Amino acid sequence: MEPGDAARLGPGRAARALPPRLLLLPLLPLLLGRGLRAAAAASSGAAAEDSSAMEELATEKEAEESHRQDSVSLLTFILLLTLTILTIWLFKHRRVRFLHETGLAMIYGLIVGVILRYGTPATSGHDKSLSCTQEDRAFSTLLVNVSGKFFEYTLKGEISPGKINSVEQNDMLRKVTFDPEVFFNILLPPIIFHAGYSLKKRHFFRNLGSILAYAFLGTAVSCFIIGNLMYGVVKLMKIVGQLSDKFYYTDCLFFGAIISATDPVTVLAIFNELHADVDLYALLFGESVLNDAVAIVLSSSIVAYQPAGLNTHAFDAAAFFKSVGIFLGIFSGSFTMGAVTGVVTALVTKFTKLHCFPLLETALFFLMSWSTFLLAEACGFTGVVAVLFCGITQAHYTYNNLSVESRSRTKQLFEVLHFLAENFIFSYMGLALFTFQKHVFSPVFIIGAFVAIFLGRAAHIYPLSFFLNLGRRHKIGWNFQHMMMFSGLRGAMAFALAIRDTASYARQMMFTTTLLIVFFTVWIIGGGTTPMLSWLNIRVGVDPDQDPPPNNDSFQVLQGDGPDSARGNRTKQESAWLFRLWYSFDHNYLKPILTHSGPPLTTTLPAWCGLLARCLTSPQVYDNQEPLREEDSDFILTEGDLTLTYGDSTVTANGSSGSHTASTSLEGSRRTKSSSEEVLDRALGAGDQPVSSRGTRLVFPLEDNA
Amino acid sequence: MEPGDAARLGPGRAARALPPRLLLLPLLPLLLGRGLRAAAAASSGAAAEDSSAMEELATEKEAEESHRQDSVSLLTFILLLTLTILTIWLFKHRRVRFLHETGLAMIYGLIVGVILRYGTPATSGHDKSLSCTQEDRAFSTLLVNVSGKFFEYTLKGEISPGKINSVEQNDMLRKVTFDPEVFFNILLPPIIFHAGYSLKKRHFFRNLGSILAYAFLGTAVSCFIIGNLMYGVVKLMKIVGQLSDKFYYTDCLFFGAIISATDPVTVLAIFNELHADVDLYALLFGESVLNDAVAIVLSSSIVAYQPAGLNTHAFDAAAFFKSVGIFLGIFSGSFTMGAVTGVVTALVTKFTKLHCFPLLETALFFLMSWSTFLLAEACGFTGVVAVLFCGITQAHYTYNNLSVESRSRTKQLFEVLHFLAENFIFSYMGLALFTFQKHVFSPVFIIGAFVAIFLGRAAHIYPLSFFLNLGRRHKIGWNFQHMMMFSGLRGAMAFALAIRDTASYARQMMFTTTLLIVFFTVWIIGGGTTPMLSWLNIRVGVDPDQDPPPNNDSFQVLQGDGPDSARGNRTKQESAWLFRLWYSFDHNYLKPILTHSGPPLTTTLPAWCGLLARCLTSPQVYDNQEPLREEDSDFILTEGDLTLTYGDSTVTANGSSGSHTASTSLEGSRRTKSSSEEVLDRALGAGDQPVSSRGTRLVFPLEDNA
Repeated sequence: MEPGDAARLGPGRAARALPPRLLLLPLLPLLLGRGLRAAAAASSGAAAEDSSAMEELATEKEAEESHRQDSVSLLTFILLLTLTILTIWLFKHRRVRFLHETGLAMIYGLIVGVILRYGTPATSGHDKSLSCTQEDRAFSTLLVNVSGKFFEYTLKGEISPGKINSVEQNDMLRKVTFDPEVFFNILLPPIIFHAGYSLKKRHFFRNLGSILAYAFLGTAVSCFIIGNLMYGVVKLMKIVGQLSDKFYYTDCLFFGAIISATDPVTVLAIFNELHADVDLYALLFGESVLNDAVAIVLSSSIVAYQPAGLNTHAFDAAAFFKSVGIFLGIFSGSFTMGAVTGVVTALVTKFTKLHCFPLLETALFFLMSWSTFLLAEACGFTGVVAVLFCGITQAHYTYNNLSVESRSRTKQLFEVLHFLAENFIFSYMGLALFTFQKHVFSPVFIIGAFVAIFLGRAAHIYPLSFFLNLGRRHKIGWNFQHMMMFSGLRGAMAFALAIRDTASYARQMMFTTTLLIVFFTVWIIGGGTTPMLSWLNIRVGVDPDQDPPPNNDSFQVLQGDGPDSARGNRTKQESAWLFRLWYSFDHNYLKPILTHSGPPLTTTLPAWCGLLARCLTSPQVYDNQEPLREEDSDFILTEGDLTLTYGDSTVTANGSSGSHTASTSLEGSRRTKSSSEEVLDRALGAGDQPVSSRGTRLVFPLEDNA
Repeated sequence: MEPGDAARLGPGRAARALPPRLLLLPLLPLLLGRGLRAAAAASSGAAAEDSSAMEELATEKEAEESHRQDSVSLLTFILLLTLTILTIWLFKHRRVRFLHETGLAMIYGLIVGVILRYGTPATSGHDKSLSCTQEDRAFSTLLVNVSGKFFEYTLKGEISPGKINSVEQNDMLRKVTFDPEVFFNILLPPIIFHAGYSLKKRHFFRNLGSILAYAFLGTAVSCFIIGNLMYGVVKLMKIVGQLSDKFYYTDCLFFGAIISATDPVTVLAIFNELHADVDLYALLFGESVLNDAVAIVLSSSIVAYQPAGLNTHAFDAAAFFKSVGIFLGIFSGSFTMGAVTGVVTALVTKFTKLHCFPLLETALFFLMSWSTFLLAEACGFTGVVAVLFCGITQAHYTYNNLSVESRSRTKQLFEVLHFLAENFIFSYMGLALFTFQKHVFSPVFIIGAFVAIFLGRAAHIYPLSFFLNLGRRHKIGWNFQHMMMFSGLRGAMAFALAIRDTASYARQMMFTTTLLIVFFTVWIIGGGTTPMLSWLNIRVGVDPDQDPPPNNDSFQVLQGDGPDSARGNRTKQESAWLFRLWYSFDHNYLKPILTHSGPPLTTTLPAWCGLLARCLTSPQVYDNQEPLREEDSDFILTEGDLTLTYGDSTVTANGSSGSHTASTSLEGSRRTKSSSEEVLDRALGAGDQPVSSRGTRLVFPLEDNA
């Protein structure tokens, strides 16, 4: 716009700033109010002689009032969280374990919800209705000509005719109601990123096969079983006349998908505190992290299932395969986005000396991780899933390039964000039980859902564990299976998926049911974890670096002469081949390229890429002899852990090194840096020799694949 | 809402979630788009038999497209920041000092702005205009009945009739334009809080009198002079016909207020890097932090100046005093809010053992600090100002109660937030020069403004320094005055105040001029800092813990026998009395009540409050003998520094301790904990004895008050 154009504009009151479409950061409620107030104040200041000054003053007052109410309602949440924090402290201080912080946040939310619902008078809203027929379509922006002045309005969504009156009813209840997308786009990403960033890598990778099986197969089985059971319940409800609106099969499957996302945050917190078995922890945590991602993508694939033709609710093979394609596409796309951003961050932090300036490093890390989310969303993938894999990649590669200060900074930053976001979601859940105005309580559906999630979980934990045990060296014992069965809590992800869309009757019923399931599982199951642990004889107080004794209750070491050794070995060989390939590729090429660790590329790459290898290998690799710090190795998989995978051998190991070094100390294993393909083969070959407890762990890529 | 109500709702498409008035956190652009998409997807999934399915598909596509564009534009900013970080690293790595990171962020912003402005094709917007006459008033929410379906719209603001076509022009330019209130409510608070939290306390308090004088008197003088000069320029423009619209005296004063907020971030960064004189640093930093607060409140007081009667632009004494009252009310109210929240946080962290759980502690600290902002806004005060004083209080009291881990966590957390917010604002400024569509470039006004800010700064720095030097022990030398004059950069605060309201022609002209002033001062003055420092002979490489030599160039120690000793002593006595009162109150009562340091209350409170004193005194006080860590004492004023203020005496000091211990080592002084009123008097009385350099510092509450 040229100065001339601007000069033509009206006096003082006309050209309000550009349409504010792009809003960036927290505190948005304050924006609208303040914007109006500022505009109104400016108008009344600069053009006070205007005839409608009184009107404007009224508008200004109204805007100011609205702004204050926004502040008050945000304050309510902050005070809720503050109260939660103080009570958590008290509980931790007195070692109370029956109630987790998230359960507490829900209780406080409930109390405030009751107060808001029954304690505040219904205020008459200051919103007016404009009836005005137009062609049959809504626009995202509306310009309204009010006696010569133009106002710009933005579409907030469609509301039902029946709602028009209730919109004006209780202002305070509206104020504490967030846009459902807040949960998905703002509160979940830091939680999920933190989960990816803090995966206990060593135990996670040791159980990767089982975790993937539980997360992918398990969630699919659970979704299908719950969906079908609920369809039966819905049919029953139709017969007894309990159902007053449509409830399709796809709705049931959708419910199955959202309710299959487990979130055993309470159980894991207790595991952490009591130092319960690390393998069980890895199984539970890994499953819950990955099945969140699976559940998101699964639910959007189900929504995308739109059969062609008139009979829109019969099975349509084309639409089904389209859905499967969408699932695979979104999942792999999001995975790629996350991994690529992680790799780019790793490269940037490796090839710059950014670690001299931890503030810059942390800021870059934060921005790159956030850009994953935006990149995925911009490409039509799922940002939350991308952020998960970005977190895993950042932890696996970038973390090793960061300065010591940045490592703790990034960990702590995401820890705080995660803590605040998680407790916010749970306190909002408590609040929503009373302030959400479209609950559909259907006792039959709710009871049916509880039975269905129980059966759905049982139907994937026990059979999958059986099949996994056929291939696992360390069997998943009955007590572990029962504990996994028991730990099927539902949490933030199920809630976020359920509240995302509450437009239809079916969705409202699902939302109410999900809320109750979350409450019940978090309170009852969370409170019962400690008794359950002792009842199931699960070891607590375990040093995470110590392996389980060779023949304890929960793990039976599979010796080569067992009854199912033939089959076990075959499975072992197959998956070992795949894992071996990946591990050696990661160790020999990815790690040296992306980080300062691993063997020099000059030794792993063929001779003809010598120049490239020299450029990519960081000089630190050659003299990187510092022993690994204990706390990092436990938190993040670093080079030393991977080396452990291939056997404790140096490049110059002689023929017998594979089984010899198997019993060297952990510290010794960490100082060694490289292993050639040849040594790796020998180390893996050591599996049929009688090995010590330490040796058992050395070959873990063999152990746990379905 | 009862189940029955819900049952009456229409099928699938009717009841969209509650009106999303309260939006909380980042990434809001993604919300609207996703919300629509989800709703549309749900509708098309569940009620695909609806006749308008095709229409909805189009809406869904549109919403998805809009969501993607939002993500892309946010990505643009993130990539800009990433690029800035990498270039900063390169500059720091190569020790380039002529361009600061903020200047760099602006340059990158400019480049992207040019590309967006001239490189992207003008897209035809998908917004339609609805002309529909209504009574003469806009509503914050609009319900539009489109063929039986109701859509809810929210008021975004008024736009000029001339703008209606341009609204539809360039979608990308609109996408990268933020709501002006984003800057004020989201980006400024972390910057300002960080400033308050990181004030180098010792030197800040040593120069408090001068800082307050520069910040309050200086800003008022500067605002008044700039306002009047600009009114002359505006008159001149009217005569030569350069002014095409109204420009009132209050507008000129408003411009004076917003442009009086200095932000010498570039200069201070170089000071920090070169370890320039700490007193000059304290003066500059303290002035810039406080004058931001003054400028905000001043500008809103000027806006509130509304003369009664018809002649709305003549001077009105009543309105003037109302404005002054508003200034005082808002300022003191915001100050109180900030201080109270800080004190509450200190009490909570003191009386709970929260420091055993650093995560909880950090989260609580963050939430309490944020609640200051909301509390102030809810009460109609200025959140940004409240946050500043909250930061100062938190640093003064709460910081001492935090665990070591939380100290670094909170510091780092706010450091990262500050860094990101600041660079975001500066890169947005660069962008805004080309993407903002209502610039009013008026060469006369711009040249006039540059002259006015130069004169305005000169008219407060030199006279105020003269008066302050009458009372100061350490004179502010000419070279310091020139450096302060030179460091009058304008930055984030001026920009945020200017962009907040660009509704009128006058405000648009101000905004454009402010933008250019920021560019010019950051690039030219920022680049000239290093030459200027050496040209003015200002000491660099100073150890912050070392005092200036007693008779160096910049500070002349005022001995009791100087020509102005009588007056100096009087000023000294007056302010010393006030400061003495505050310091002893703070040290004897506030510190022991709010923190674990200071003398036990049982010794400072009268005997009859013995029980209360025992309750409030923390047990650590009695055995708190640990020496203070050096880095903390430099960053945050801790107990040791205050003790230094009163003289290095223990409670049991004998009569001659005041001057004796004046030359003890710093470490010794830090281990002593308490001083009684009596000892304080003696220490202050030591001022007329010939004292050593260390002694000079001991009595600093005397030294620097106007």
